[in-house]
Amino acid sequence: MMLHTLAIIGVGLMGGSVGLAAKKRRVAERVVGVGRPGDALEQARRLGAIDDAAASLADAARAAQLIVVATPVSAIVTTVREAATHSAPGTLLTDVGSTKGEIVQALELTPAAPRYAGSHPLAGSERHGVDHADGDLFEDRVTVVTQTRRTDADVVQRLAQFWTSLGSRVRILSPSDHDAVLARTSHLPHLIAAALAAGLDPEQYELTASGFRDTTRIAAGDPGLWTEIVLQNRGAVLAALDAFQNRLEPLRRALDNRDAAAIHAFLTQAKKVRDALGTPPLPP
Amino acid sequence: MMLHTLAIIGVGLMGGSVGLAAKKRRVAERVVGVGRPGDALEQARRLGAIDDAAASLADAARAAQLIVVATPVSAIVTTVREAATHSAPGTLLTDVGSTKGEIVQALELTPAAPRYAGSHPLAGSERHGVDHADGDLFEDRVTVVTQTRRTDADVVQRLAQFWTSLGSRVRILSPSDHDAVLARTSHLPHLIAAALAAGLDPEQYELTASGFRDTTRIAAGDPGLWTEIVLQNRGAVLAALDAFQNRLEPLRRALDNRDAAAIHAFLTQAKKVRDALGTPPLPP
Repeated sequence: MMLHTLAIIGVGLMGGSVGLAAKKRRVAERVVGVGRPGDALEQARRLGAIDDAAASLADAARAAQLIVVATPVSAIVTTVREAATHSAPGTLLTDVGSTKGEIVQALELTPAAPRYAGSHPLAGSERHGVDHADGDLFEDRVTVVTQTRRTDADVVQRLAQFWTSLGSRVRILSPSDHDAVLARTSHLPHLIAAALAAGLDPEQYELTASGFRDTTRIAAGDPGLWTEIVLQNRGAVLAALDAFQNRLEPLRRALDNRDAAAIHAFLTQAKKVRDALGTPPLPP
Repeated sequence: MMLHTLAIIGVGLMGGSVGLAAKKRRVAERVVGVGRPGDALEQARRLGAIDDAAASLADAARAAQLIVVATPVSAIVTTVREAATHSAPGTLLTDVGSTKGEIVQALELTPAAPRYAGSHPLAGSERHGVDHADGDLFEDRVTVVTQTRRTDADVVQRLAQFWTSLGSRVRILSPSDHDAVLARTSHLPHLIAAALAAGLDPEQYELTASGFRDTTRIAAGDPGLWTEIVLQNRGAVLAALDAFQNRLEPLRRALDNRDAAAIHAFLTQAKKVRDALGTPPLPP
């Protein structure tokens, strides 16, 4: 896939990484970025994540064959919708939000629908901003592309090709399957890491080792972005939280009863899962 | 501090790292290791973590000026006690167990008491075995040395010197303060990471990113060792688990009520703590 112009709306860590990867792998001849005034567009240009800052969303949308919306999740629906209005009929639209159900459902009711499918690259960092963007961010990571019975199969195929060309493996999921899984692999872990971190008093900070630091690393993520994410995926996150609390109950009882066999079995099952995931890639 | 002979009983990741660090920093002229037959003593010798495998615990204890017991926590009391029996009157004794209350209390009732204080280097890994030992493991990490009103102040001072000479910063705490803090910074996070990992189904494994992998890394730890640890520190771990569950409740309510301000405040407090801890050191 070779695009003449790729437009990225919202050039932070994720949008900036899409731009860097697209340039590096010659997936797009030209990358234009859109951001609010005062955003780090100039910095994105200096870093090579975009070639030009567009004068307006409309300008960028008109010029592009593919528009990637990488704003915070609460702004995605409006932004994709506006981009669709200004873009040529053949232009593809996607977003990279961490939740998919609400976003895809809302966009399927708009004129953007025939040219849109949702994306979610399972890559990122607790950091944010284009300064931490990385052209190799998608390599060997999974990107989910969403499909519903209303989604155009050709749009899904072309988006899958785009993410593959950035180095990613692609999985096609329904928005609700995506949200149910991500609640368990990302949104709940974020809240749990935050609850562990929030429980520490300052005089205990120095009595933490790498275990605590790893376990709570994601709690350093942006509170605003994550508030939006867990609220957008509220139903699935609440279900995941319930399931998690239900797993803690037998563990609590086992501790209470000094039931070494039950604790051992619980830790063995957890280790089996964790070992199957392999060594974590280093954060970018 | 320069020791003629340092004895290490139990030469796994932690014991092996003590040996490597002591050799590297010339803290001991000679390091002897003790382990059960079939243990990796020969491998420890090849790696330079020990100079010799002792024929018996008694032999090693007799020759040493400092004995470090690095067995699993359930074997520490018996082992320190036996080492004390065979060692010369001036020989110092310590252990590196992750819990301190039960161990110190039991040892204070034995003849080992006047020459013993507990230690806990807050360093380690989800890995185990001498193959993962690291002579720099203690550098810039905190080691707790325990003190009670029965502990000889001179023993504490000399042990503090020993850990400092291995590159560690030393904090002196009562065993119960140690256990209360470590329940929150290590033992509870271990159980929570395990509960997150255990909740994943195999078809979800590939939909995990580095966030989940970091958050659950410690769940790959040895189930046997960790069962012992959480049971030895059962009271403090239960208290930490209660406090943790109590922090989840308002969070659950906030999600239920779509209370963005409350979620934002919770995540902001967590981020403040996590940011104060700094970047995690890479696992050895």
